[in-house]
Amino acid sequence: MTKLAIYGYGNLGRGVECAARLTGDMQVVGVFTRRDPASLQTLTGLPVYRADEVLQHRDEIDAIVICGGSATDLPVMTPMLAEHFTVVDSFDTHAHIPDHFAAVNAAATRGGNVAIISGGWDPGLFSLMRLLHASILPQSKTYTFWGRGVSQGHSDAIRRVPGVRDARQYTVPVPAALEAVRRGEQPELTARQKHLRECYVVAEEGADKAEIERRIKTMPDYFSDYDTTVTFLTEEELLRDHAGLPHGGSVITSGTTGLSGENRHTLEYTLALGSNPQFTSSVLIALARAAVRMRARGAVGCKTVFDIAPADLSPLSPEELRAHYL
Amino acid sequence: MTKLAIYGYGNLGRGVECAARLTGDMQVVGVFTRRDPASLQTLTGLPVYRADEVLQHRDEIDAIVICGGSATDLPVMTPMLAEHFTVVDSFDTHAHIPDHFAAVNAAATRGGNVAIISGGWDPGLFSLMRLLHASILPQSKTYTFWGRGVSQGHSDAIRRVPGVRDARQYTVPVPAALEAVRRGEQPELTARQKHLRECYVVAEEGADKAEIERRIKTMPDYFSDYDTTVTFLTEEELLRDHAGLPHGGSVITSGTTGLSGENRHTLEYTLALGSNPQFTSSVLIALARAAVRMRARGAVGCKTVFDIAPADLSPLSPEELRAHYL
Repeated sequence: MTKLAIYGYGNLGRGVECAARLTGDMQVVGVFTRRDPASLQTLTGLPVYRADEVLQHRDEIDAIVICGGSATDLPVMTPMLAEHFTVVDSFDTHAHIPDHFAAVNAAATRGGNVAIISGGWDPGLFSLMRLLHASILPQSKTYTFWGRGVSQGHSDAIRRVPGVRDARQYTVPVPAALEAVRRGEQPELTARQKHLRECYVVAEEGADKAEIERRIKTMPDYFSDYDTTVTFLTEEELLRDHAGLPHGGSVITSGTTGLSGENRHTLEYTLALGSNPQFTSSVLIALARAAVRMRARGAVGCKTVFDIAPADLSPLSPEELRAHYL
Repeated sequence: MTKLAIYGYGNLGRGVECAARLTGDMQVVGVFTRRDPASLQTLTGLPVYRADEVLQHRDEIDAIVICGGSATDLPVMTPMLAEHFTVVDSFDTHAHIPDHFAAVNAAATRGGNVAIISGGWDPGLFSLMRLLHASILPQSKTYTFWGRGVSQGHSDAIRRVPGVRDARQYTVPVPAALEAVRRGEQPELTARQKHLRECYVVAEEGADKAEIERRIKTMPDYFSDYDTTVTFLTEEELLRDHAGLPHGGSVITSGTTGLSGENRHTLEYTLALGSNPQFTSSVLIALARAAVRMRARGAVGCKTVFDIAPADLSPLSPEELRAHYL
C-alpha cells in the first residue's frame, strides 16, 4: 500500500480521504492541519496532526497530497514540502504556473524528490487534451468551455457585495458557441459569447436588491464582460437546490488535414462532474501514484501531467494494461 | 527537421505524406514499397524506393512510419524494421497486441531502437482515455462506441458475397445506448444494442438482390449479431455519396465517488473524423516525434501510448507547453 498524507482539510482534503478508499493500493495515514487537531473530526476518523509536525512523520509517508488554495497556500506549501516529501498539488492559477514550477522544481531538486503540480481537470486532464490535439493536428484550433458548474471564486466575489448573505454562481457555456465550435466553424469568441454567468443570491433582510443586482452585473473582471443573470432566493432554497459543487466543461478541437485541408476532424473531451473537489482529488491520487513510481525510478524535480507516462497513473501492470486497455 | 520514411503506400501512407507537411519539424524523405517503384507516383512527388533497399538508406532516416495492414503485414514488417530503425506502427488487432509487443520488443531491444506499436485512435487515443478514466475513477464503467464510420473489414466482407460488385459498410452507435451510458445508467449492452450496421451495396447486373441481402444479414461474426440494413444503389451513387472514409466514436466513462458513491461523474471523449486514415497518420507522426526523442535519451524497446510522456508528442518546448497549454 502507498501511504498518503493529506495536508489541509477542506473540500479537497475530504475528497482525497474518500477517493483513496476506492483504490486498492493507496491509503491515507493522516491529515495535517493548521487548525487545532483536537477541533477537527475527519469523515472516516483519520488521525489528525499539526501541520508543523509533518517532518516528524517523514518515515510514515510515501507522498503528500497538498490540499490548499492557489492564491496564498500552495505558493508557500508546495516548495516547502517538496524539499522533504514526494508531493502533488492542484495549483490552478494558470498565469503563475511558470513561477510556481520554478520554485517547486528548485525545492524538489534540492531534496531529491518528485513534485507534481497543477493536477486536476483544468489544469490537468484538459491541459493534456489541449496538448494532444495541438500535437496531432497542427492545423487546428482548440476551445475550452467551462460549466455548467459552480465557480467558487465568483461565488465569493458576490458574497463580498454589501447586503448579500450568501450566493452561488454557475458558469454556463453558451449553447450557440458550443455548437458553432462543434460544427468546425472556428469562430472568434469574446468572453460574453462563450459563457453566461448565473447568480443565485440570498439578500440580507431589507437589503436593496436592485442595487445588489447592479453591483454584481457591473463588477469588473468577474461579471461586467458577461451576460449575467441574478436570481434572489431564500437561504433554505439555496441550501436545498444549490448545495452541491458540480462542474465540468469541454475541450473541443477542430482541425483539418489533407493536401489542401479537405478533411475536417472534430475532437471533443467533455466532463460532467457531480462534485468538482471529489473529482479533482481522484485525479490527485492517480498523480500521487505516478509521483511515487517516478521517484522510485530515480526521477527528481517538478513535473506536470505533460511529463507523466500514462501507465504510471494506473495500479495495473504494463502487461495487464496492454492486454485489456490498449 | 526529423526525417521520416513511409513504408507501404496505401491510404495510411498517403496520410503520412500529407500530415507531415503540416508540421514544422518533420519531413518525409522517401517512400518504400513492395511494388515496382517506377509504377508508383506519390501525391507530392516523393522519392520512391524498393522495400528491400531500406537498409541502404539507414543514415537518411530518423524514423519509419510503417503503413501496412495488421493481418499479415505488420506482424512481419515491424519486428524486421525495429531491429534497424526507430519505428511506429498502427497494429490494431486488439487480441494479438501482447504477441506483437513481445516480437517487436525483442527486435527493438536487439537493435537498440525504440518501436511504438498500436498508434492511432483505437488503439491509441481511445486506449489512453480508457486507462486515464479507470485510473482516476476505480468505481466506474467505461464504454467504447465506434462510428458513424466506414469499416473497411466489413465492407470487404460484403464484397466477397456473390453478385456484389462494390459495397460500403457504416458502423453506427445506437442512439438509445449512447444516451443511457451518458446518463450514467451503466447498462449491460449486447453487440446488437450498441451498434447498427448500414450496408450500401452495388449489385452485379441481374444478381438476386434478396439473396444478397439475406447472405449479408446472416453472415456470422460480421452481421448476424447486429441490426443490419442493406440499401442497393448504383455504382455512380456509391462513388458520389460514399467515397470518403469518415470514422470516429466515443469513449464514455461513468463512475462515482464519495463515502457512499453519492457523486456521479461522466467523462466522454468523442472523435468525428473526416478521414480515418488521415487522422490515424497524424497521430502516427506525433508518435514518431516521441519515438525519436525517447531514443535520443537512451530508451530502448517496444512502447505504446501508455509509455509516452505527452510532452514528447509536441514540437513545443516544456517551457512553452507549461506557459500556454497547462
